[in-house]
Amino acid sequence: MRSVVDMNSDMGESFGAYTIGNDSDIMAYISSANVACGFHAGDPKTMRETVKHALELGVGIGAHPGLQDLIGFGRRPMEITPEEGYDLVLYQIGALLGITKAEGGTLHHVKPHGALYNMAAKNKELATAIAKAVYRLDSTLVLYGLAGSALIDAGKEVGLQTASEVFADRTYQADGSLTSRRSPDALIHDPEQASKQVLRMINEGKVMTQQGEDIDIAADTICIHGDGAHALAFAKDIHEKITASGITVQRIEA
Amino acid sequence: MRSVVDMNSDMGESFGAYTIGNDSDIMAYISSANVACGFHAGDPKTMRETVKHALELGVGIGAHPGLQDLIGFGRRPMEITPEEGYDLVLYQIGALLGITKAEGGTLHHVKPHGALYNMAAKNKELATAIAKAVYRLDSTLVLYGLAGSALIDAGKEVGLQTASEVFADRTYQADGSLTSRRSPDALIHDPEQASKQVLRMINEGKVMTQQGEDIDIAADTICIHGDGAHALAFAKDIHEKITASGITVQRIEA
Amino acid sequence: MRSVVDMNSDMGESFGAYTIGNDSDIMAYISSANVACGFHAGDPKTMRETVKHALELGVGIGAHPGLQDLIGFGRRPMEITPEEGYDLVLYQIGALLGITKAEGGTLHHVKPHGALYNMAAKNKELATAIAKAVYRLDSTLVLYGLAGSALIDAGKEVGLQTASEVFADRTYQADGSLTSRRSPDALIHDPEQASKQVLRMINEGKVMTQQGEDIDIAADTICIHGDGAHALAFAKDIHEKITASGITVQRIEA
Amino acid sequence: MRSVVDMNSDMGESFGAYTIGNDSDIMAYISSANVACGFHAGDPKTMRETVKHALELGVGIGAHPGLQDLIGFGRRPMEITPEEGYDLVLYQIGALLGITKAEGGTLHHVKPHGALYNMAAKNKELATAIAKAVYRLDSTLVLYGLAGSALIDAGKEVGLQTASEVFADRTYQADGSLTSRRSPDALIHDPEQASKQVLRMINEGKVMTQQGEDIDIAADTICIHGDGAHALAFAKDIHEKITASGITVQRIEA
Repeated sequence: MRSVVDMNSDMGESFGAYTIGNDSDIMAYISSANVACGFHAGDPKTMRETVKHALELGVGIGAHPGLQDLIGFGRRPMEITPEEGYDLVLYQIGALLGITKAEGGTLHHVKPHGALYNMAAKNKELATAIAKAVYRLDSTLVLYGLAGSALIDAGKEVGLQTASEVFADRTYQADGSLTSRRSPDALIHDPEQASKQVLRMINEGKVMTQQGEDIDIAADTICIHGDGAHALAFAKDIHEKITASGITVQRIEA
Repeated sequence: MRSVVDMNSDMGESFGAYTIGNDSDIMAYISSANVACGFHAGDPKTMRETVKHALELGVGIGAHPGLQDLIGFGRRPMEITPEEGYDLVLYQIGALLGITKAEGGTLHHVKPHGALYNMAAKNKELATAIAKAVYRLDSTLVLYGLAGSALIDAGKEVGLQTASEVFADRTYQADGSLTSRRSPDALIHDPEQASKQVLRMINEGKVMTQQGEDIDIAADTICIHGDGAHALAFAKDIHEKITASGITVQRIEA
Repeated sequence: MRSVVDMNSDMGESFGAYTIGNDSDIMAYISSANVACGFHAGDPKTMRETVKHALELGVGIGAHPGLQDLIGFGRRPMEITPEEGYDLVLYQIGALLGITKAEGGTLHHVKPHGALYNMAAKNKELATAIAKAVYRLDSTLVLYGLAGSALIDAGKEVGLQTASEVFADRTYQADGSLTSRRSPDALIHDPEQASKQVLRMINEGKVMTQQGEDIDIAADTICIHGDGAHALAFAKDIHEKITASGITVQRIEA
Repeated sequence: MRSVVDMNSDMGESFGAYTIGNDSDIMAYISSANVACGFHAGDPKTMRETVKHALELGVGIGAHPGLQDLIGFGRRPMEITPEEGYDLVLYQIGALLGITKAEGGTLHHVKPHGALYNMAAKNKELATAIAKAVYRLDSTLVLYGLAGSALIDAGKEVGLQTASEVFADRTYQADGSLTSRRSPDALIHDPEQASKQVLRMINEGKVMTQQGEDIDIAADTICIHGDGAHALAFAKDIHEKITASGITVQRIEA
């Protein structure tokens, strides 16, 4: 049984006059913030303010690089080469690194966003390119990826510390992948069921798939959604239940 | 009389399928490369390739942040707040820092681009915000600015080493500013006259203004234009004349 | 005394995953919608949905072209040439024209956005370029501009019908310009005072300036802000008071 | 045997300070110009200048809408919904329509660009959405697509006139598709062989596939590449050979 677990959430996704998410409230319940870096969301000012807030609360600061698709919020898969993946990840982590250094902090982790996250979960070549970008920039950064994914494998192979991510409110397939959002069964809408799933993943390292069988799953970090009507209540609830079960919520030790 | 002088040029201004400039040839004659950082020009791949080339030739790598105006190549003045200037400069230097670190190099300097350079030459508040961004990110970076400008003053005030930049092919006004490009007398078209002006600035620290009087000018670094039909020939010629006069072309010691 | 007046509001300023404004509610109280065209705000989908909604309610559809500054929401003045103004306005009106034609509607007016609106109020050359773009695209379009501005003059000179715009909640200077937003007196915060000002402008063609004197003002159309906490209540209130005073709210006859 | 054929080329792909292609020379040898509309390439000024030049030479003006991927020049496939395809095509055609109307011309055709062209060749739902956007905007526009593609089928089904496009320098597969550019056999490098292939497609309606068998192919319009070292010579050569064989090069009658 684990004694600690990380809770992470996507932060800093506002852009110019546009605000999204509920960052200032959610930040209190997480141990790691994935900060959007300007390609799919986020802008230099939002990045700076988010970094500052994370530093104040002692939350780990991570780069959250995405595809260069602001209008699609980085959620639409694009055919990019591994080299393109390497370059866009490096650029974005660097941008956040600059802001973080100027604020007196240090970067803690990197978690690709949206379509890039999903593509890197399955495409080993792309995953390796991303992992190399992270490693070459700073080999002490922790690479976050879907538990059991190609990205986690690639991170380990290049020598990075990795954090296997699990989802409270998503259902799983027999191969450990998430049920596609196109499926009606993709989401767990009942908060009780979602917390049960996540606590079992943390405590037992198991999750029951949509096919009705248990599989092993590594649960180093739990993804907390930052927007939506119930995001805050859910973040608070999960945090309480984890703490109540004797597990400490804290960032991955780099 | 100086024993050394720096020659700098804007580099890495290509973007995606679009190429601009004559980087690979010009790079041989300069000691400092100002690398575009993706806002007014440049993209992650071009940045990486430019950094790599500069490292191979031992050329100092500088960030060349610009206004977020790709279509106008960062040449159109915009009303931005000092805070906006701080943020956009920090973001762009960081992006180049990430790429440079991953290539095993270190950043050497920062020179704002185009309209941002001109705005920071006159607007002290903006200049100070830019200087602070540079200093807070890395206090060993050298800040390049127009000789005699508010940006040089601001850089000194925040504690940065500065490099006063002069132009071979631009004419000067009595207050040390460049003659506006809207004036027919803005440019020196005769290469002989341009080299004479620049050598005199280096050797004597003087330049004759459009008003016919000599003024003092600090000439730590000479701006070499990277595009245009005669850019390469001019870069080579200036480099030879400087060297022939017993002065070493080398980057500013940070 | 007028028998009719137009009420207009900026609409369709959402972008991708980002929503802004309260379009669906405000649309019920206005006679003309200024639809953002993708440069400072708005995207193709939002434009189509906004056009469709306006057609359903019989609200006049206007293009609301802005500077190409999404991150600044088109609010930051930029130095553009009249030719650049001509081109960017033409492109954006065309984009909305295409969408409106496909939905079976016709364009009614054009109102520049934000910094472009303010620049065109004072810069006659830019104003003329914008007016020509509108006229050459469709000479029956109505050009909206600040009452008494260079844009209204330019529109008349090129042969366009114009609509002089007034603001309920902004204070006026002796020359008919709006008090700068940098001044603490720029805004009228009291809804009662705002409605009084606007009704007097409509009924008497007069407004009292910050200097305490009455000036003449043409009030063809009233600008209603679409966002902010009290926008909807204010739109409804103004609409009721205008109607109660015997004036019909209806779009400008083209 | 045909008595007329259309020659088309992609035009107006410059952007801001960046120039690409050889438009002014190529324009003399084509009958239809596909004008980039600002998403993958092109800007409002370039569009206006290209439209003006086409009008001067009597070349048919077509919209050449692409994916919103300037950095990738619209060549990288993205997962977009049919609705997103509809919206982005409509917006871009409209933008060009506005510019063309202002110049006193009319739009003649629409040809999707790059990855969008290829996606619409195979994805019938996306193809239908694009065809509907064109039809709803102006049902007299001619829809250009790969000969034998889903886009040509969709165009016919929604009631548009279509133009089946063939390539002189690309090889064909048994199903009428182009050999993937990833294959070493994708391109015909010998100009003689390329002209022979294109003349046979025009005269006999046949092309020999990579598998060595003849297939039927409709050749309403020939794609002429606008950039590359030999583009101009090739355009001129093809034009001469077609004319010499008694066929008139002229735009598709709408």
